[in-house]
Amino acid sequence: MGVYISGVGMTNFGKSKKSLEKMMAEAAGLALKNAEMERVDAIYIGVMNVEEFVGDSNFAALLADTIGLSGIPSTRVETASSTGAGALETAFYAVASGHMKNVLVLAGEKMTHLPTAKTTRILSEVIDRSERRYGATMPALAAMIAQKYAREFKLSPKKLEEILALVAMKNHANGSLNPHAQFQKRISREDYLKSQWVSYPFRLYDCAPITDGAAAIVLTSQPTLVKVSGIGHATDTSAVSHRASLTSFNSTKESALKAYRMAQLNPSDIQFAEVHDAFTLFEIIGTEDVGFFPPGEGWKALEQGVTQLRGKLPINASGGLKSRGHPVGASGLAQVVEIVWQLRQEAGTERQLKKAEIGLAQSIGGLGSNNFVTILERADRKRVVTEGWRLDYRPRIKPSRKTGTALPQEGTGVLETFTVLYSPPEGFVSPLTLGFVKTKGGDRVLACNPDYRSPTDLKMGEQVNLHKKEGLFVFEKQTLWKRLQHWIKNR
Amino acid sequence: MGVYISGVGMTNFGKSKKSLEKMMAEAAGLALKNAEMERVDAIYIGVMNVEEFVGDSNFAALLADTIGLSGIPSTRVETASSTGAGALETAFYAVASGHMKNVLVLAGEKMTHLPTAKTTRILSEVIDRSERRYGATMPALAAMIAQKYAREFKLSPKKLEEILALVAMKNHANGSLNPHAQFQKRISREDYLKSQWVSYPFRLYDCAPITDGAAAIVLTSQPTLVKVSGIGHATDTSAVSHRASLTSFNSTKESALKAYRMAQLNPSDIQFAEVHDAFTLFEIIGTEDVGFFPPGEGWKALEQGVTQLRGKLPINASGGLKSRGHPVGASGLAQVVEIVWQLRQEAGTERQLKKAEIGLAQSIGGLGSNNFVTILERADRKRVVTEGWRLDYRPRIKPSRKTGTALPQEGTGVLETFTVLYSPPEGFVSPLTLGFVKTKGGDRVLACNPDYRSPTDLKMGEQVNLHKKEGLFVFEKQTLWKRLQHWIKNR
Repeated sequence: MGVYISGVGMTNFGKSKKSLEKMMAEAAGLALKNAEMERVDAIYIGVMNVEEFVGDSNFAALLADTIGLSGIPSTRVETASSTGAGALETAFYAVASGHMKNVLVLAGEKMTHLPTAKTTRILSEVIDRSERRYGATMPALAAMIAQKYAREFKLSPKKLEEILALVAMKNHANGSLNPHAQFQKRISREDYLKSQWVSYPFRLYDCAPITDGAAAIVLTSQPTLVKVSGIGHATDTSAVSHRASLTSFNSTKESALKAYRMAQLNPSDIQFAEVHDAFTLFEIIGTEDVGFFPPGEGWKALEQGVTQLRGKLPINASGGLKSRGHPVGASGLAQVVEIVWQLRQEAGTERQLKKAEIGLAQSIGGLGSNNFVTILERADRKRVVTEGWRLDYRPRIKPSRKTGTALPQEGTGVLETFTVLYSPPEGFVSPLTLGFVKTKGGDRVLACNPDYRSPTDLKMGEQVNLHKKEGLFVFEKQTLWKRLQHWIKNR
Repeated sequence: MGVYISGVGMTNFGKSKKSLEKMMAEAAGLALKNAEMERVDAIYIGVMNVEEFVGDSNFAALLADTIGLSGIPSTRVETASSTGAGALETAFYAVASGHMKNVLVLAGEKMTHLPTAKTTRILSEVIDRSERRYGATMPALAAMIAQKYAREFKLSPKKLEEILALVAMKNHANGSLNPHAQFQKRISREDYLKSQWVSYPFRLYDCAPITDGAAAIVLTSQPTLVKVSGIGHATDTSAVSHRASLTSFNSTKESALKAYRMAQLNPSDIQFAEVHDAFTLFEIIGTEDVGFFPPGEGWKALEQGVTQLRGKLPINASGGLKSRGHPVGASGLAQVVEIVWQLRQEAGTERQLKKAEIGLAQSIGGLGSNNFVTILERADRKRVVTEGWRLDYRPRIKPSRKTGTALPQEGTGVLETFTVLYSPPEGFVSPLTLGFVKTKGGDRVLACNPDYRSPTDLKMGEQVNLHKKEGLFVFEKQTLWKRLQHWIKNR
């Protein structure tokens, strides 16, 4: 059964004095009004961590009650930072089953009321325990991925900085045209360069902000102007160190495969997209993972202006997570709200895209461990005959390492990538140097380094010693003296 | 599309030294092996509060990885203490949609490792904030419902005690035959009477225990011996005080209506059931709510032995939440595992029911705010022609009060029901006397009482004064002297 969208709505994103349920009720009210509907058959609630952010449990029933729909079935859905997309997928199947006609999807998060270190700790709980205990945060892991990307695709630190700045500038420019965005101002390259370090090579302007906000969508089995034509969902290993590749996400690629297959569309059919830019480089990787550009070439498209608002394939016309804001549970749904507005030509004169008949949303849960790709299109679009349709998207998916395999040993290894984290979670000292080390056996381990605190002290690709201290791997530069010590010890 | 069950499995319930993900992996392994399957199209994870019980987030991806199915879509579903049933419902629609062929539903909770007061606080977060701030816990609210039930259906305190003891004794007797149960021993009436007070009139043996455990089910679109023939789901107000009736749950009745309609079955068709006996009286109410017995007569059926293991309509052959244990996220799914075992004649010689072709599971989320009814039947059962099928279940559903209406005022009222809570959550002093007071305007409010600490001091139905102190309603017995004071004050 076909699934359509009959209503959308969202609150302004930013710092709000309202309670989470009030914000979510506001978004629900807007979407129901937009759908010209008062009741639905079911409600799917997307919240990532109400337990710790607001101290509530049993939120699905509370929300149904708050929006005046007590009695209606209500289910909470969660897939970390892709929760909004997860709630949409879950509701999609409920409607597709034919058992439900109209379903409300309602996602939100309240985050700004807590101290940043506490918020950081809560957000870090999405990271695998084996990596979290090193003090690794989302920015730290993402920063290491950015460094690795630069090395793999031969971008100098200067060049990487330029590209990251370009993403931030583009998305802030787009956000300046979005009345719902948390930041509605353009930023210059100077603003970018002046912003404080979060985790080298990421500055504040590389990271999506902490945000309050909610979004809502009404799905229906009755044909409307906007059809949900493909949804794909895939997971990857909980630990980043187990991944075969650090410069792309299997979970996005497998999600995209499924979504294209369901929609019977190809990457070349997509006219615009909302991509999960929780970190600037993730936008580049996202556009490569969904097949818009070849691996390692997403940044070229950005440089050439292809992904600009008036480019050939606009990415994050809304401002993205970067500028619209990132209330973790809501972002995956807010992306889809933007796509619906664009498809309906309702994005406002300045932000409205000209070619907007097929759009794609890509959402990341955790550090790429629970991802989604959703494709929407105008139902009145002229479809090329689907008979004989063939998928021309063939991503390279190298399988991740199985968990439960033996832990690597001490010894020597190669420093694959590293970061210096300047805002570690509660209980860790700043700055915190972390790196992924490839051992001789080919395993990757996360390791910390108490000695080197300047990013220029370390080099990707150099040999390091790896030993255990208080249960954690520590990597050390192989100075001549240390190499000698190591040689003597292992003689 | 029809939805069938191809595999089930569960861990032993009780106190476990294993981590939550290890327990859940064990259950998943059993269910997959039982289904003779290595891969599935999707995973639905039911956990109620991993954030606070075990300090993890992003659990759906972690679990997929732990069970060796990293890559497969994995979604966490939560509806408070009915979470296991909620995960099953969500997975049901995914299979019913035709998009998924085989789906793993995996539910669990780890609770025993925390101090009881902390566990109590976490569990209390499912209660509406307006009631939680009085120190109300799940046992306290349930105890007030039990008192109200006794008054409404004219049971003396002695009679109520007898009935509650009977439920506990029956379910412990059943649990003694269940190798997966937390408590595998019968209890006597003396054991029951000797057990400590939790919240008057509830003793320890009236309350389901704190438990670790996990359960798993594989759903499939391929016909098997067991069919999921009906699922119903409904919510009710977050605050118990807003309900029209305290002695039955609208959310169960509406769930049952939907489940019977989908299955085209009637209460009289059901041969056995698993009913959410988190508190002894909830089993009685549950059997009335799903239409097995008229309101106020469930206890008679119990007394007459109808619901015993060898009775006409066995309830909780597994031992129920009471004796099998209650890992909050898992219970709703463990009920269904038991029904599948019974339908397949796999429950073991002692526990196996003779007539087991149609079974029903009823699950409660929070204090009756997010409930489910699931009906399963043998696919090889001879069905009476469904043409002309008519529902003969007509529950009385009085709508709950809308939230957001004006708060009641101070003044006088009637003490509708009360409890004395002996194990309040962190931050409250024991014993804590709580009551629901009906005001002159017909509103119900939760109120506390610092004076009266013996249950025999208070009487349901008596006039009380209601005033506010530090933002909380306090009720006071109208002694002659207090009545005079009140009269003088309000003259």
